[in-house]
Amino acid sequence: MKLASLREGRDGKLIVVDRTLSSAVQVPDIALTLQQSLENWASVAPLLESVYQNLNEGEGQRFPLDADKLAAPLPRTYQWLDGSAYLTHVERVRKARGAELPEQLLTDPLMYQGGGDTLLGSRDPIPLVDARWGLDFEAELGVITDDVPMGVTPENAGQHIRLFVLVNDVSLRNLIPSELAKGFGFLQGKPSSALSPVAVTPDEIGEAWDGRKVHLALVTDLNGERFGNPDAGEDMHFDFPALISHAAHTRRLSAGTLIGSGTVSNADTERGCSCLIEKRVLEIIAAGQPATPFLNAGDRVHIEMLDGNGRSIFGAIDQLVLPWPR
Amino acid sequence: MKLASLREGRDGKLIVVDRTLSSAVQVPDIALTLQQSLENWASVAPLLESVYQNLNEGEGQRFPLDADKLAAPLPRTYQWLDGSAYLTHVERVRKARGAELPEQLLTDPLMYQGGGDTLLGSRDPIPLVDARWGLDFEAELGVITDDVPMGVTPENAGQHIRLFVLVNDVSLRNLIPSELAKGFGFLQGKPSSALSPVAVTPDEIGEAWDGRKVHLALVTDLNGERFGNPDAGEDMHFDFPALISHAAHTRRLSAGTLIGSGTVSNADTERGCSCLIEKRVLEIIAAGQPATPFLNAGDRVHIEMLDGNGRSIFGAIDQLVLPWPR
Repeated sequence: MKLASLREGRDGKLIVVDRTLSSAVQVPDIALTLQQSLENWASVAPLLESVYQNLNEGEGQRFPLDADKLAAPLPRTYQWLDGSAYLTHVERVRKARGAELPEQLLTDPLMYQGGGDTLLGSRDPIPLVDARWGLDFEAELGVITDDVPMGVTPENAGQHIRLFVLVNDVSLRNLIPSELAKGFGFLQGKPSSALSPVAVTPDEIGEAWDGRKVHLALVTDLNGERFGNPDAGEDMHFDFPALISHAAHTRRLSAGTLIGSGTVSNADTERGCSCLIEKRVLEIIAAGQPATPFLNAGDRVHIEMLDGNGRSIFGAIDQLVLPWPR
Repeated sequence: MKLASLREGRDGKLIVVDRTLSSAVQVPDIALTLQQSLENWASVAPLLESVYQNLNEGEGQRFPLDADKLAAPLPRTYQWLDGSAYLTHVERVRKARGAELPEQLLTDPLMYQGGGDTLLGSRDPIPLVDARWGLDFEAELGVITDDVPMGVTPENAGQHIRLFVLVNDVSLRNLIPSELAKGFGFLQGKPSSALSPVAVTPDEIGEAWDGRKVHLALVTDLNGERFGNPDAGEDMHFDFPALISHAAHTRRLSAGTLIGSGTVSNADTERGCSCLIEKRVLEIIAAGQPATPFLNAGDRVHIEMLDGNGRSIFGAIDQLVLPWPR
């Protein structure tokens, strides 16, 4: 099924969206928010699923879906952990800032904790505070879990994946080198991320989800032109169950935890990129200097994933860069 | 006023506690949870304050306060950011793991984002999963904010401090060096932290709170013996408004954000330490090797702050280390 949140209050108002993303229905008798649903998934999900089936069969009252009226499916989460599972991305980005690759690159996932308290909706503008900060996007796939026990193994972690979303992990490239040099990870370098209009249960991805990875292209357009369409199932060195197990190694994860794949990136450069800095690195390698600028006011970032029949699974993240304060 | 949360549901049930920490009253007609109160502070705080005054004057129904029945005041927060404002701590800990000091040590606060979704109550055991991980405590002071706008200046940040708490920032010392070497900060090295029984409004700290720092000793006992009593107002290089401003530089902070001071530490070694690793470093300097082990099953950590009259402000964090799974 497909779930979304209308802009209302701090947690949004849960709605069920039909498979084609054209209509939706409110479900106040079942659950008020997506967070509440995740906390009571075993009892709530079957009720939501029933509404979803009726909706797809054309039964019951509905209203047209308007992405502009949606908050992020989870407007705030108690935990946003972002992996870096595509090593091509890690290698290119570290090359860009002259940083070394971690010794344990192949065996120990990179993961940081980001600000999940103010997630942006799919149509919310990306604030441009200072162009010198080097504003960039990162197109990713993310999973939302229920309660995950401490020490969960990769074999048992997959069952805790309740929903998938797309993520735009907004990054401030020119703040990151000095911030990471301090040794404590990202803080100012990673402002609020945005989520896709809807979150979907694993069955909506069909056979493209093999229980470990999603074998579909993640398509990013910049200002209406194709920027990249790497396959999210290729070159993902740490799969989603491995990322969840890594996150839960020394602590339990509470329901609603969002775990990102990291920027989707293929070794095949023909597939393009999912962030500006990777393209800049490839330009430096090819021509000695970058040609692609970081984001500026008026730029538009569009991130979407289509199923085998060309239908949008999550709806599109479609964000305009706007000066702040506006 | 002093606020706490009974163990009930994921967010606890808000109670108002009297100044002496001996009795409390439920306030379901005012707010169900502390999180809810923080989201509506302007309207809720005066009502809670009125209950608090009556409670201190001996009016109305009450029940005896039992710290064992309390969850953390905020059992989960959307954001837990921990500064490292006491540079003596930074210098000693980095010496212990042979890491360099950041170039911008004096001008740019160290801060990491930790897991705030599963905060421990003051009497919850500290789980000992594997003694080889090097289990340690860190005694800290923390502030809880309301909604903080992006870009808030240090001059305007102080007004967003709604509550103070004590924090035990549990650390796994032997996991940290390789984790930080990856460059993305803490994740597995920082399991769930614990909070003091009650959170208090700034006025409860009286003149010891000067709007920037709290000039009182933070007392830590280990297994009934004094371990440290450094003055939280001494050697704090970045004050609380500076830490909030740093955190909000590129994103807004939502109500309920918890910001820690970092381990309280004085240059004067006569004041002892607020974590084991600092003591171990001092032992290495004095005798060539550490004499103090990391925490083991059965150890008890007691963290408390007393006012000028010797009364406990927050109640005590008093945690027993227990093997996990129990």
